[in-house]
Amino acid sequence: MSIAPVTTAQPAAAQPSVATLPFKVADLGLAEAGRHQFRLAENEMPGLMALREEFGPSQPLKGARIAGSLHMTVQTGVLIETLVALGAQVRWASCNIFSTQNEAAAAVAVGPNGTVENPAGVPVFAWKGETLEEYWWCTSQIFDWSAEASRANEHWDGPNMILDDGGDATILVHKGREFEMAGAVPDATATDSHEWTVILDTLRASLQASPDRWTKIAAEIQGVTEETTTGVHRLYELAKSGELQFPAINVNDSVTKSKFDNKYGIRHSLPDGLNRATDVLIGGKVVFVVGYGDVGKGAAEALKGQGARVIVSEVDPINALQAAMDGVQVTTIESVLDQVDIFVTGTGNENVITVDHLLGMKHLAIVSNVGHFDNEIDIAGLEKLEGAERIEIKPQVHEWRLPSGRSVLVLSEGRLMNLGNATGHPSFVMSASFTNQVLAQIELFVRGADYGVDVHVLPKHLDEKVARLHLDALGVKLTRLTDEQAAYIGVSPDGPYKVDHYRY
Amino acid sequence: MSIAPVTTAQPAAAQPSVATLPFKVADLGLAEAGRHQFRLAENEMPGLMALREEFGPSQPLKGARIAGSLHMTVQTGVLIETLVALGAQVRWASCNIFSTQNEAAAAVAVGPNGTVENPAGVPVFAWKGETLEEYWWCTSQIFDWSAEASRANEHWDGPNMILDDGGDATILVHKGREFEMAGAVPDATATDSHEWTVILDTLRASLQASPDRWTKIAAEIQGVTEETTTGVHRLYELAKSGELQFPAINVNDSVTKSKFDNKYGIRHSLPDGLNRATDVLIGGKVVFVVGYGDVGKGAAEALKGQGARVIVSEVDPINALQAAMDGVQVTTIESVLDQVDIFVTGTGNENVITVDHLLGMKHLAIVSNVGHFDNEIDIAGLEKLEGAERIEIKPQVHEWRLPSGRSVLVLSEGRLMNLGNATGHPSFVMSASFTNQVLAQIELFVRGADYGVDVHVLPKHLDEKVARLHLDALGVKLTRLTDEQAAYIGVSPDGPYKVDHYRY
Amino acid sequence: MSIAPVTTAQPAAAQPSVATLPFKVADLGLAEAGRHQFRLAENEMPGLMALREEFGPSQPLKGARIAGSLHMTVQTGVLIETLVALGAQVRWASCNIFSTQNEAAAAVAVGPNGTVENPAGVPVFAWKGETLEEYWWCTSQIFDWSAEASRANEHWDGPNMILDDGGDATILVHKGREFEMAGAVPDATATDSHEWTVILDTLRASLQASPDRWTKIAAEIQGVTEETTTGVHRLYELAKSGELQFPAINVNDSVTKSKFDNKYGIRHSLPDGLNRATDVLIGGKVVFVVGYGDVGKGAAEALKGQGARVIVSEVDPINALQAAMDGVQVTTIESVLDQVDIFVTGTGNENVITVDHLLGMKHLAIVSNVGHFDNEIDIAGLEKLEGAERIEIKPQVHEWRLPSGRSVLVLSEGRLMNLGNATGHPSFVMSASFTNQVLAQIELFVRGADYGVDVHVLPKHLDEKVARLHLDALGVKLTRLTDEQAAYIGVSPDGPYKVDHYRY
Amino acid sequence: MSIAPVTTAQPAAAQPSVATLPFKVADLGLAEAGRHQFRLAENEMPGLMALREEFGPSQPLKGARIAGSLHMTVQTGVLIETLVALGAQVRWASCNIFSTQNEAAAAVAVGPNGTVENPAGVPVFAWKGETLEEYWWCTSQIFDWSAEASRANEHWDGPNMILDDGGDATILVHKGREFEMAGAVPDATATDSHEWTVILDTLRASLQASPDRWTKIAAEIQGVTEETTTGVHRLYELAKSGELQFPAINVNDSVTKSKFDNKYGIRHSLPDGLNRATDVLIGGKVVFVVGYGDVGKGAAEALKGQGARVIVSEVDPINALQAAMDGVQVTTIESVLDQVDIFVTGTGNENVITVDHLLGMKHLAIVSNVGHFDNEIDIAGLEKLEGAERIEIKPQVHEWRLPSGRSVLVLSEGRLMNLGNATGHPSFVMSASFTNQVLAQIELFVRGADYGVDVHVLPKHLDEKVARLHLDALGVKLTRLTDEQAAYIGVSPDGPYKVDHYRY
Repeated sequence: MSIAPVTTAQPAAAQPSVATLPFKVADLGLAEAGRHQFRLAENEMPGLMALREEFGPSQPLKGARIAGSLHMTVQTGVLIETLVALGAQVRWASCNIFSTQNEAAAAVAVGPNGTVENPAGVPVFAWKGETLEEYWWCTSQIFDWSAEASRANEHWDGPNMILDDGGDATILVHKGREFEMAGAVPDATATDSHEWTVILDTLRASLQASPDRWTKIAAEIQGVTEETTTGVHRLYELAKSGELQFPAINVNDSVTKSKFDNKYGIRHSLPDGLNRATDVLIGGKVVFVVGYGDVGKGAAEALKGQGARVIVSEVDPINALQAAMDGVQVTTIESVLDQVDIFVTGTGNENVITVDHLLGMKHLAIVSNVGHFDNEIDIAGLEKLEGAERIEIKPQVHEWRLPSGRSVLVLSEGRLMNLGNATGHPSFVMSASFTNQVLAQIELFVRGADYGVDVHVLPKHLDEKVARLHLDALGVKLTRLTDEQAAYIGVSPDGPYKVDHYRY
Repeated sequence: MSIAPVTTAQPAAAQPSVATLPFKVADLGLAEAGRHQFRLAENEMPGLMALREEFGPSQPLKGARIAGSLHMTVQTGVLIETLVALGAQVRWASCNIFSTQNEAAAAVAVGPNGTVENPAGVPVFAWKGETLEEYWWCTSQIFDWSAEASRANEHWDGPNMILDDGGDATILVHKGREFEMAGAVPDATATDSHEWTVILDTLRASLQASPDRWTKIAAEIQGVTEETTTGVHRLYELAKSGELQFPAINVNDSVTKSKFDNKYGIRHSLPDGLNRATDVLIGGKVVFVVGYGDVGKGAAEALKGQGARVIVSEVDPINALQAAMDGVQVTTIESVLDQVDIFVTGTGNENVITVDHLLGMKHLAIVSNVGHFDNEIDIAGLEKLEGAERIEIKPQVHEWRLPSGRSVLVLSEGRLMNLGNATGHPSFVMSASFTNQVLAQIELFVRGADYGVDVHVLPKHLDEKVARLHLDALGVKLTRLTDEQAAYIGVSPDGPYKVDHYRY
Repeated sequence: MSIAPVTTAQPAAAQPSVATLPFKVADLGLAEAGRHQFRLAENEMPGLMALREEFGPSQPLKGARIAGSLHMTVQTGVLIETLVALGAQVRWASCNIFSTQNEAAAAVAVGPNGTVENPAGVPVFAWKGETLEEYWWCTSQIFDWSAEASRANEHWDGPNMILDDGGDATILVHKGREFEMAGAVPDATATDSHEWTVILDTLRASLQASPDRWTKIAAEIQGVTEETTTGVHRLYELAKSGELQFPAINVNDSVTKSKFDNKYGIRHSLPDGLNRATDVLIGGKVVFVVGYGDVGKGAAEALKGQGARVIVSEVDPINALQAAMDGVQVTTIESVLDQVDIFVTGTGNENVITVDHLLGMKHLAIVSNVGHFDNEIDIAGLEKLEGAERIEIKPQVHEWRLPSGRSVLVLSEGRLMNLGNATGHPSFVMSASFTNQVLAQIELFVRGADYGVDVHVLPKHLDEKVARLHLDALGVKLTRLTDEQAAYIGVSPDGPYKVDHYRY
Repeated sequence: MSIAPVTTAQPAAAQPSVATLPFKVADLGLAEAGRHQFRLAENEMPGLMALREEFGPSQPLKGARIAGSLHMTVQTGVLIETLVALGAQVRWASCNIFSTQNEAAAAVAVGPNGTVENPAGVPVFAWKGETLEEYWWCTSQIFDWSAEASRANEHWDGPNMILDDGGDATILVHKGREFEMAGAVPDATATDSHEWTVILDTLRASLQASPDRWTKIAAEIQGVTEETTTGVHRLYELAKSGELQFPAINVNDSVTKSKFDNKYGIRHSLPDGLNRATDVLIGGKVVFVVGYGDVGKGAAEALKGQGARVIVSEVDPINALQAAMDGVQVTTIESVLDQVDIFVTGTGNENVITVDHLLGMKHLAIVSNVGHFDNEIDIAGLEKLEGAERIEIKPQVHEWRLPSGRSVLVLSEGRLMNLGNATGHPSFVMSASFTNQVLAQIELFVRGADYGVDVHVLPKHLDEKVARLHLDALGVKLTRLTDEQAAYIGVSPDGPYKVDHYRY
């Protein structure tokens, strides 16, 4: 069991605080609490449970060694145990320093049949509130399969599959290999982010310890399945530049992922995060949502449903027109800065809220991000701002007193607040996303030869299958096309039902 | 002027009632009334007006001879006059026997500078309430450019462009050419629809009169731009079978068309049609919407906005899941048949409401179609049903007394009720659709060589342009990406902003 | 039959245009069309139909002579025939110059068993598009029961009951009596409205013809039931000043009236009126609603349901807070005047849109009233504005070209546009209101002795009864309190269920 | 300071666990955390802060000794400190065993200027998770003013004002006095609830210790202000039976209370409680709401805003009709029992969910109450059900395994889940309610002579004042009536604006 790994292998310098982990599984009964929640979550994740039933007997992932980097929540626990139920071996890290639910990590580590003393689960490297150094140490651990290799009497260098969220695991392999081929890791420059510096340090240490570790790992990997817009964007960049090392399935762009997770997940978890963080009445408030993609649409719907007045900004005229048609005011953030009570970013872009914006806001305006990284809000700039003072109201909720004499409330230090201040997307939404992930892992592991070194999306019949597996739980009764009707529109009565470019 | 064309060219047998047209432009002052409405509509069609301003000077459609087949409404009037302002010559028919607004037809025929006595507009063959014989006679008139050719001293066989809605104009050319190549028009069979019989009669008469008319017309046509899902479906079928004769642009699948016209247009015009037809309170009623595509989504939103309880049926599990996530009950029509007050079809498929369904409905249930043809509801079957009696409550609203002892109210004889009972999509929505049409006509006429004989969609930058031209009118203030932000997500600050498969 | 009454009784000077009525019942088959609509409306008016069934046998209104002044629509037709079915004799006028549906007037006049030649219905004095002179002539006709008295061989001076909407019938009696007691009708002054001048003229002519007509009429009246906020306000004023002449039931403040008619009726008929008048897309538009009472709430809900962005103004801080809590921007009309596409007034107050407001609006802004009289918008001021020009786009839709160079579109000349441009509240809503009216007429006629000369509301059990009679039609299944539960909250299981001050 | 009062005064038998309180203020730094939250809450409670500013100088509550029984949350902390700022002395208990936020209790006890060692706040008797014995012990403590009397060298028997929520403090005084007059406390019977038994025990002990304690206390009390529907109902019962001992103000029926707290508060805190308790996706779920009063309306709106499908049950036909008009299915709980995912009660009545209902539910259906006491759901019956087993998932979330083989999830043991599983209504809502409370305390304390021994509501101008004090914070700009407009509708431009029976 590896939740709270105090091993001699870790250089004290690189992971200074790992030795003093913030929780002890055995002491707190976390595993049992997590197991209770898994049981409830399984009731809400019909897609994953259906896959266990359908594919459990045939074990399509037998032989798969999956390195997973994805928020270590209760839902991910059910995902991990589904992968295992389908035959896979798994190692896991979170993809966010705040998003781990410790009881879920503990339950996965202990496993359904294990005990704290004799764990029978999956090695997990994740806890709530990692430092960046700890984070990248954790991520590198999911590529170290020496223990499993030794147990199996095999000579694996690492995993043969990646299941990624945001692309950090994929980046580590690609950058590791790149620097190994260059023979050196560059020095961080003054303008580099702190995180990039940590990554460089991590890879520099690796290069010293094992000069071809990542090259060998990259060669063994049969494919990656990627969860998010941001990670997918990185994959397309790699594919375009010819640097991509293995096939990738863009799970994010399954309809049952991007149109469900991004929209309905945020609709649920944005107000949840706001409530847990601040307890502020959303009704009657003016809320500014930066971006009206799927995330922004889900955010706006949730906020309107709570009686807020929503204002949106957009760069894309089509999305802007959609917002207007949905009855939402569309304007620039600058033009309403001092009228807004709550700011929500959901763009996938950087610096959409700048320090200048922060300085112009109302006293105690709430600033939160459900888009992607913490750079959507210029937290780095805020940290450098002279005269700004940070007061912790409670974990993940900070009042920043600004030189203007006013304060702003920053949630989750600018990182994804639905994960940091709440518990992320709920199980049912994640069931749709993760059913895509599992089907994609099967596709790449079983039919990988059919997929070139490029970025692919799941075939539409699998996308429809994911939806189909979630209908019964909602009491949905589907209508079946007659043969005549199917012929009339030129499809099979079993689907797929739509042309590829259909937008839903 | 040709609104009420009583010409010797028409064989009395084929168009028996054309000689007794239901209105007289000159008598009723319709043209002036239509012109007033054009002026108001122009205020609501900023996209078309912007194109007039941008392209008026350069006259990109000079030389274009456009045969248009599209509902002859006020909005289409503004479209036609935009095409003319860009240099085109135009002949026009409606694509629906009920959808013509006579005052719009009159105003187009008279033209902005003409008089009833001395018309200076566009030849229009359309009036509200055509018979099917009249309808296909009208459609064939838009291919007869002899008058224009003679005036211009040219030898045109017909138009060189088609602007189509539903594909009737395109079908006529393709079927005409096919039968000419076969040397004969087949006889209608017992199971053929009445409409197909009329088409065959029309083409048989044409074959007798001119055995290669459609072959020559097809050869002259540089391309077609098609407005609707149904028409686009037909085009893809023709392309797949290798029968397509000229390039086609699928205007329907521009985001600013399908996601605007289908969704926001229906949201507006469905309740409008219900109200004008029946004056029945929508609030509190149970409304069953067949299909949850863009049309069904717009319908459900409108009905919920009026306080109805909406139930939906779907064949596609993804759309079904969307409906459930939007809080809508999803079930089969059979399971709630006797609880429903209003039925709305929006599928693009046939027989989604059958005679058996009609027989099981509540007394005075309202049955209406906003999907495509009148075969969504089995009107043909109803007409054949023994013991059923039709009572006209008012034009386009019929009570059918059924053998069950109950009645149903059928709107627009099962045809598109938002056109038949109301005035179709409002100007602003049509401005987006028609701006796509004009840009597509320009693409095919000016850059046709770049487009092979296949079905194409408009490039994304033109789709975004359509949106952009409609923002000012709504007071929308767009945000501009900084160069750094644009680089961060790998786009130009001027767009296009999204990958092609983005679903909005 | 009296729809188009060309009688010798009317002095040519006072009713100049009555002799040239705009329609002829017999010629147009209006009565039959109206009868069809009555049949459909009866299906939507379960409350009235239930009263016919419950009270038809006992004829509680036998002996009642009801003077009705209420919009002469299809729904009112079903009300009138319900009153008759309960034993009443009735004479009717509309309470608005534009709101009459001629086919409904015709059908009522002909009666269910009559013919055009041999009418068997109720004397109706109403047609669409009356002048003010005609309007007040019509209103005075409902007090002339000489024909009925003569037929019955009785000596009635007038009706013994009033059913009023807006208070015009009640005002006429009270003012008539007041002037008779004073012995003279005052001259109109320069600042008096045109309407007041017409009323004075009407009463002056009456005083000359019969100096105690209204005094005698007032003495015979047992009570009035009043439909609207405005009329009720007038009644409370009369009661406060001691001038009220007979008991009144404030039907407006039944929950099933004010919270249904005002809110759900407007929710339906406001967008209906906008659509029929202008066909302008409501989605994406900025709509300003003046007032957030029940009418404003219904308006805002309808507009939001169509995708409009709603802004509201309020004078009452409680209603303002409600609007904010419902996610609506609340500000003054002046502060957003040039950003608004559509204005809707719903206050019951005067001059909430002034000429200055009109001059500051966007080009072709739409201005409409669903509040009460046409003085909500300063139409009188507009008519006097130098340089303003009125162009009729179509009946009840006028473009006013303003000296500013911009135009505004005024609907129904500033009068209630849901009646003028559409068909008013739908049948189901009116069924609730009118069921209250009938129950109130019965209360006052049968139990009038229990009611002093004051303004009363219906007892709560009758209000609940009205609701109860409308549930089945909507498929609502009510839960019944157990005896223990009823005792626990201290009510009877049969109701009434709430304290009197409960606000619903 | 009295948060964790370990005093010799408490008989060990009656309060067995008080000596081992679940938290220690000094150890946990709770007071400081609570103080941070007070600062943020003050920003959200503009009404209370405005009262401090307006009335701080004049000290209208100087001399008031207020016994408060109301959920001891952060918001109540701001209320208490407002009462103190206006001159009052205060003692406080919570009115619910689960609703106390310990940090708020700690901060109040320490006071703004105190320290843990040297507290300067208000004696507070409340902590999260009291037993019923502890609860009633705490409630009786707020009537013991001996320490204050001794410090002030006065001979007070108790408080002179009660600020109550649910009526427990008021009941204790009335029952105490009643039993003292009878000379004995009756024995509990077999059918009495456990809580009633505890109350009887408490009063029996009191009677033994001091036979006229409550009689003397009742005589000193000048009035009570009551917060909730339930408490108000009890007051009206007391008034009706002539048992009421002092004037009462029904704060609950201020518009700015019942229509804000009940509706907008629940809209916020119901989904908050569901999320914190279960993390279950609300979207797509079928949710059954028992009761469609203000609480049910707020619940339904919140749930629809999250994409749930809402079904409602009602006993009152008017509320049922409202639900139908809002697009909600209305039926009995029995008819859809097995289709529902989440149950929410909001009736103020007992046994609206019975054990039979629980037995018929889906596996893991969620059962929760936002109405009033825990008897809305028959928890007592469940506890007695043979074969039922309770498993704590986490505090206030229990899985009940039922003899049916299925489980249900019961939140907060059937008590108010928005308080037990979340943090209750947010500050802004409570600001409106508590501003009413403070104004009512001032009314009764300063102008008590004007109020007879009966139940009163606040005059409308104070209700409007409460609203007015909350507008600025939401950016609402109020419109002011002109003198002409005010005269036209017969009000003052400064209000009150509506008749008393207006329903908002």
